[in-house]
Amino acid sequence: MSIVLGGNQYGKAETHVVRINKSEAAGAHEIRDFTVSIALGGDFSRSHLAGDNSNIVPTDTQKNTVFAFAQDTPIGEAEEFGLRLARHFVGEFAAVHRARVHIQEQSWSRIIVEGRPHPHAFLRKGPEIKLATVTCAGDSAWIISGVSDLVVLKSAGSEFHGYAIDRYTTLPETDDRILATVVLGRWRHRGTVPNWHESYDAVRAILLETFATQHSLSLQQTLYAMGEAVLQRRPEIVEIRLTMPNKHHFEVDLRPFGLENRNEVFYAADRPYGQIEGAVLREDSPDPGPAWG
Amino acid sequence: MSIVLGGNQYGKAETHVVRINKSEAAGAHEIRDFTVSIALGGDFSRSHLAGDNSNIVPTDTQKNTVFAFAQDTPIGEAEEFGLRLARHFVGEFAAVHRARVHIQEQSWSRIIVEGRPHPHAFLRKGPEIKLATVTCAGDSAWIISGVSDLVVLKSAGSEFHGYAIDRYTTLPETDDRILATVVLGRWRHRGTVPNWHESYDAVRAILLETFATQHSLSLQQTLYAMGEAVLQRRPEIVEIRLTMPNKHHFEVDLRPFGLENRNEVFYAADRPYGQIEGAVLREDSPDPGPAWG
Amino acid sequence: MSIVLGGNQYGKAETHVVRINKSEAAGAHEIRDFTVSIALGGDFSRSHLAGDNSNIVPTDTQKNTVFAFAQDTPIGEAEEFGLRLARHFVGEFAAVHRARVHIQEQSWSRIIVEGRPHPHAFLRKGPEIKLATVTCAGDSAWIISGVSDLVVLKSAGSEFHGYAIDRYTTLPETDDRILATVVLGRWRHRGTVPNWHESYDAVRAILLETFATQHSLSLQQTLYAMGEAVLQRRPEIVEIRLTMPNKHHFEVDLRPFGLENRNEVFYAADRPYGQIEGAVLREDSPDPGPAWG
Amino acid sequence: MSIVLGGNQYGKAETHVVRINKSEAAGAHEIRDFTVSIALGGDFSRSHLAGDNSNIVPTDTQKNTVFAFAQDTPIGEAEEFGLRLARHFVGEFAAVHRARVHIQEQSWSRIIVEGRPHPHAFLRKGPEIKLATVTCAGDSAWIISGVSDLVVLKSAGSEFHGYAIDRYTTLPETDDRILATVVLGRWRHRGTVPNWHESYDAVRAILLETFATQHSLSLQQTLYAMGEAVLQRRPEIVEIRLTMPNKHHFEVDLRPFGLENRNEVFYAADRPYGQIEGAVLREDSPDPGPAWG
Repeated sequence: MSIVLGGNQYGKAETHVVRINKSEAAGAHEIRDFTVSIALGGDFSRSHLAGDNSNIVPTDTQKNTVFAFAQDTPIGEAEEFGLRLARHFVGEFAAVHRARVHIQEQSWSRIIVEGRPHPHAFLRKGPEIKLATVTCAGDSAWIISGVSDLVVLKSAGSEFHGYAIDRYTTLPETDDRILATVVLGRWRHRGTVPNWHESYDAVRAILLETFATQHSLSLQQTLYAMGEAVLQRRPEIVEIRLTMPNKHHFEVDLRPFGLENRNEVFYAADRPYGQIEGAVLREDSPDPGPAWG
Repeated sequence: MSIVLGGNQYGKAETHVVRINKSEAAGAHEIRDFTVSIALGGDFSRSHLAGDNSNIVPTDTQKNTVFAFAQDTPIGEAEEFGLRLARHFVGEFAAVHRARVHIQEQSWSRIIVEGRPHPHAFLRKGPEIKLATVTCAGDSAWIISGVSDLVVLKSAGSEFHGYAIDRYTTLPETDDRILATVVLGRWRHRGTVPNWHESYDAVRAILLETFATQHSLSLQQTLYAMGEAVLQRRPEIVEIRLTMPNKHHFEVDLRPFGLENRNEVFYAADRPYGQIEGAVLREDSPDPGPAWG
Repeated sequence: MSIVLGGNQYGKAETHVVRINKSEAAGAHEIRDFTVSIALGGDFSRSHLAGDNSNIVPTDTQKNTVFAFAQDTPIGEAEEFGLRLARHFVGEFAAVHRARVHIQEQSWSRIIVEGRPHPHAFLRKGPEIKLATVTCAGDSAWIISGVSDLVVLKSAGSEFHGYAIDRYTTLPETDDRILATVVLGRWRHRGTVPNWHESYDAVRAILLETFATQHSLSLQQTLYAMGEAVLQRRPEIVEIRLTMPNKHHFEVDLRPFGLENRNEVFYAADRPYGQIEGAVLREDSPDPGPAWG
Repeated sequence: MSIVLGGNQYGKAETHVVRINKSEAAGAHEIRDFTVSIALGGDFSRSHLAGDNSNIVPTDTQKNTVFAFAQDTPIGEAEEFGLRLARHFVGEFAAVHRARVHIQEQSWSRIIVEGRPHPHAFLRKGPEIKLATVTCAGDSAWIISGVSDLVVLKSAGSEFHGYAIDRYTTLPETDDRILATVVLGRWRHRGTVPNWHESYDAVRAILLETFATQHSLSLQQTLYAMGEAVLQRRPEIVEIRLTMPNKHHFEVDLRPFGLENRNEVFYAADRPYGQIEGAVLREDSPDPGPAWG
């Protein structure tokens, strides 16, 4: 009975590069803030089995490559930067059959001074983070964009009832609860997109608007509605996957203190929390291949 | 040789209360999101020495009190809510000589739907957090407001040179570096303030503007300038304390790759980091008493 | 072109239950500390598409079930507890086709008093965490055990050279470096195991011993050797997957200070870090089915 | 009305140095793992007010100094290493009037191979961290040792009743509860100690034993008993300050499921939590000066 090496990959994780573009004629600086994680797949069995590293691109070299490519002007959107990096690794090294580059982008706004945006001083926006994951294998590329840490809450328009009952059920049904979640959304494109930034802003706005306006009978329903709205309005996207924890806000019982809580005072709990995950896709969406990792 | 009890305090930490105000005629909800930490000082030695808890207000009761007081309409600003709570504990319990209430407030903005703010759907702003610390003892009260997690960066207008040199010095002098920090600022008021929110917004704007526009020869100089500007323009404030880590952004040496880095590609380091702390105050500022804890 | 619901699941995450067993004749208490996350798969499309929750077992009920089942005496090992829970959900609810229960177990040791273990006072061991993931579908069950946060370092017996070189390579080859990592290991069993605890302790010891004694030419080689050793010595295990970040320790250049660093003073970096992942398995291992999630 | 600079300090925080001692004849390596934070006080007003940095020792130089001093053989205990560093800064730079060096030490044990400790492979102990804070001013030095992240729990021998009651009280009295906390303890010495490691191990054992054996009527009583026991048995210590959060474990009500919870199934809550802080000291303890910061 033989023991063998199974699936494996490696790479440099969380190289944090900040790129300032000072080349604009007007003198205003531009900033990009990328945390880049690389994972390479390929023919690395000799390193695993015999310590022969001839096929291994050191993770230190991967980090250097991130910094060198960040010098490109313009550095471009996260999807474009990731694509250049991923193509480099599969193109440069025969042993590398697949490269995945995952980028977390932190956004910055300009500090406002006397009513006008300052040319080189910035304030971090957040907690929201923009995501891009590019996978290259041979001549093919798959691109996923996304957002994480988008924290939302609605104080009306959310119900939860009619669920399955068993002997462990104690939850009362409700037609008025707080619905709060931290959206992690990732969406797959049909190919490349002319303007990644415009697409991202549009998807983000659709997610927020649908969360706000859809009358919710369950977080599952809200999740699906958010994904469906994105696909209905953005033809460049073929699939979206959403993870939305149910951040419980429990109405506090104030009756022991002689007070009536008219659904206005809530305890915001940390753990445990519900975790809802789902994909929404076009029936004719192309095979995702290795896009999702 | 006798062993004695020294300084001591206790309380409930991090009660996370969310208050929705649904009472507005227009139907728009308002949200307040407070994480409240209480610390009581007083005559608790019998509990420490003998397990006699007759002077102990259970931390569970403190939590209940936070929720009960959150029912007040309006709940008010963090400073006002903290003041009501702190006064309650020193007024209600003879053994409680001092009450300190520290509040971290998370801000929410309204989700924009078709160009208009939604009446009951919210997006968390951040990472910035608003702070308020109220201390009551007898009839006196001290109020400190503040901000944390205000992340800023400037890509020009920062130099660092002329520093002390010894045999462990390797840092090159520079007349062009990135200056990045995470501002923690806390400021003490002369008394109560008619409009806490207006005051907070103004201080925050002054801190940001001064960071942006002051030409920096050291982070120490920037810190002082930020504090000085607040005191010059806000008469209600008598002292401000700032903690500003130097979040190093190191220019990457791209010469090994045949590239010239024109001060545009940076490695954003995590640790170690510089830590700069300082107070700026009016010479005639009243004694802070127990305000700073 | 139609939009459809894709893969989806939901459940209660991170229910933290502590079970004290006071039933032993000898009077010594036993403690189990489980953080339980549940994910159910099945026929939930009506909730997603129409807000019809009749097939939804509320996550609140799932939490209640965890607490109720924790009353069982004995509660058993994490694998056994997870198996009872997972079987319950697929057995009780026709709409639930698959249940996955993931448990993080925190271990406690007894506090030593006058040389002897105390019967009911405990000290948390750590940072190491024991993992168990049980997946049930129909009558089938798959069980994965694991460990996370196992932090190890060797100060000799690690080299790295002979790797691929390109124009972005600056890393010097070395025949003496610190090798440090945080082992995340998860292993799949052929079926159930008579004594889960004994098996866990044995696997953990093999991982540690192999890390210590194998002369390392790359972290990839070390990873494979660790996995291979587990499979060689534990017939109940058919596959092991390891994730091992390369926690870089850089030798500090002390020559500017007139000192020679004889490979003894290191800067322990946080980010970026190498990330090495790989599976080792028996060629005849059964299909994993949904075991890995 | 004049605006002035108040108290200020600065320094390099969290330099993470790992020192391997390879000089032992027997071939066994020794490891020390220190995260070092430095704060300097002194005459830095010209930097704050005018950007004149001539009195500023760059934090980069402080980092270099940590690494250079780590080359000393032996590096010594954290208290000794901190004392050498703090003395250096006040001795070398006239503008530096006070230096505080705070060290967090992570402990490592040797990996056991075939029943014997391995000479150069290590497993991180934890989550417990050893602390040392050394403050130097002029020729004087103050040394505080400590421990953090010492997580303990007792499942018997803890009661809580007889506390103050008001209209917000809902907590039931109990004569049998879980008592769990995360000890942060810091203790001040009369001078230097011949064997810091022996002293630390002894204090740690006394804290644990007293927590285990003292019958607790309140966490306040337990805190005082722990501090008192340290002072009674360790003459080199004059004061100890303890911070002990009450990590609530709530008995779960299983009656809705037809089960009786015999105080054996608990929900371990995260927030809010009680926070108990207190000092225990000798009546004749010398003035602490700047020891506590």
